[in-house]
Amino acid sequence: MNKITMSVGSGGASTRSFVSDIIFSRLGNEILNKASDSAILDVSSKTAFTTDSYVVRPEFFPGGDIGKISICGTVNDLLVSGAVPKYLSFGLIVPEGYLVSDLERILDSMAAECRKAGVKVVCGDTKVVEKGAVDGLIINTSGIGDAVYNYTDVSNIKEGDAVIITSDIARHGMSVMLARGELGFEGEILSDCACLLDIFESIAGMNVKFARDATRGGVAAVLNEIASDCGLGFLMKESDIPIHENVGYLCDMLGFDPLAVANEGLAVIIVEQGEAEAVLEKIKNCESGKRASVCGIVEGKNVVLETAIGGKRHIEMPSGELLPRIC
Amino acid sequence: MNKITMSVGSGGASTRSFVSDIIFSRLGNEILNKASDSAILDVSSKTAFTTDSYVVRPEFFPGGDIGKISICGTVNDLLVSGAVPKYLSFGLIVPEGYLVSDLERILDSMAAECRKAGVKVVCGDTKVVEKGAVDGLIINTSGIGDAVYNYTDVSNIKEGDAVIITSDIARHGMSVMLARGELGFEGEILSDCACLLDIFESIAGMNVKFARDATRGGVAAVLNEIASDCGLGFLMKESDIPIHENVGYLCDMLGFDPLAVANEGLAVIIVEQGEAEAVLEKIKNCESGKRASVCGIVEGKNVVLETAIGGKRHIEMPSGELLPRIC
Repeated sequence: MNKITMSVGSGGASTRSFVSDIIFSRLGNEILNKASDSAILDVSSKTAFTTDSYVVRPEFFPGGDIGKISICGTVNDLLVSGAVPKYLSFGLIVPEGYLVSDLERILDSMAAECRKAGVKVVCGDTKVVEKGAVDGLIINTSGIGDAVYNYTDVSNIKEGDAVIITSDIARHGMSVMLARGELGFEGEILSDCACLLDIFESIAGMNVKFARDATRGGVAAVLNEIASDCGLGFLMKESDIPIHENVGYLCDMLGFDPLAVANEGLAVIIVEQGEAEAVLEKIKNCESGKRASVCGIVEGKNVVLETAIGGKRHIEMPSGELLPRIC
Repeated sequence: MNKITMSVGSGGASTRSFVSDIIFSRLGNEILNKASDSAILDVSSKTAFTTDSYVVRPEFFPGGDIGKISICGTVNDLLVSGAVPKYLSFGLIVPEGYLVSDLERILDSMAAECRKAGVKVVCGDTKVVEKGAVDGLIINTSGIGDAVYNYTDVSNIKEGDAVIITSDIARHGMSVMLARGELGFEGEILSDCACLLDIFESIAGMNVKFARDATRGGVAAVLNEIASDCGLGFLMKESDIPIHENVGYLCDMLGFDPLAVANEGLAVIIVEQGEAEAVLEKIKNCESGKRASVCGIVEGKNVVLETAIGGKRHIEMPSGELLPRIC
């Protein structure tokens, strides 16, 4: 089979052979391979549960693809909640005629990322729709993890706490933008798409007050969400916010605020001021945290940026269209 | 807002107001409304986990819509596994320009069905794609339940066990087929789309050996899957298999085998022969089980139908295209 046919989604014989030949051979394990209506799992009595759908275009971009992002994104949502990721589900929507080789490449990415993140895919579903009914692959992954720490309670946040950003900002959004080839010039930016397991393992047990990954809407959205939920503001120092030179240049040129551009391997972590340097050191020792930085403080009621030249401006909640289909 | 705009999917201010005005007002509860990256849940240490994506067209059909089916389908997958459904996630893919009134109607359906099924939606995600990138709404729901009973182990099935079908077959597939208006004649068949909570509550604790809901591929696919997994066959009695007259007539006319047509509120339940009548009586007292019937027996190695006129034929695993986009 070179291309996906409608019969793969029929629930009949072709579905069964597709699932066993294409899916189980890559994502299979003793739970998934049972192919029951539900997976039966041993879990912690406090469990974290999250879901995300992925519609990124192009499906392949420098540093990742829709399969990698579908695992990292959901795993990261569990990690920033203070959970240890354990089990994932996947739901594939595939158009008729989709290249099996592309699907296999994407499933291979998913499998590789699952191994890195230490998670098992335990249940799944594949729907095939007519050619043209969707413009490519769509993936949903939901995830379950043991809720060990509590990084989701904004009431833990206090004036004076430090803000750590775990990587340089805006790489994913700019990578995808450039990969679309619509800008009229060449070049490549590597997406930051990555699973943050190493970072969250390394800071487990430290005094982390709150964490959130900065995907759609970027760091600006996360800071504004937190501020609106806890009633406290932030003072961020532009010169301390890590950004790759090329990314900053591209954002400038296109008129994007890099703070509002999507990331896929970056968390905003709020810690007690006194522990900020110790947490930062742990993070910087991690593969996905090399460019981490303490770059802000919880202060006042507004979300404010102290610019590199010493001025101050509000960091607004992003509004309008931003970059569509970034994840 | 009359129509969904791209900015609803941006992760910024429009996303937040969409989520609170359109989603939380219908599906909201103390967990979902936290809008954290993950929901933190109290669960049983043995937990069932399932996922399904829904792409049914048309989105509204007699007896249901894509919202209702997205709750019933996932809840039923938990029930037939022997679990008590507890928590659901949802992932919406919405095309730009989609009517907000249609989306609200679908979300209202989801909310109503959640109340009936006693489940809470605890996490979700909305992605907006450009007009034309998908041909309508797509919904993914994943579900978590307490795994109380074990209805998924085929090794419990023994020669002589009875097969119960909990409702009349092929209604959902024929309903959707007719609703598409492509057949050149008028008429309406009510889908069986329903949550089977009442049935599974009423038979809880009885000697149920195995259960599976017969969606895509119909009863034929389920019987063949079980046979292939446990190495035993079935002898089904056609005259005992419930089917609505109009549905049978339509299947005949179109050349469909009703055993291979999708259902959305029907389970195949295998019980010890001696308890079959007691289980059947419980089921028939339920709203969604009024037309239930004991209509087969575990026997031999093949899946065989004894026809109404006394002949015998194999019930084959459905193959080929069947009816696309039925769920």
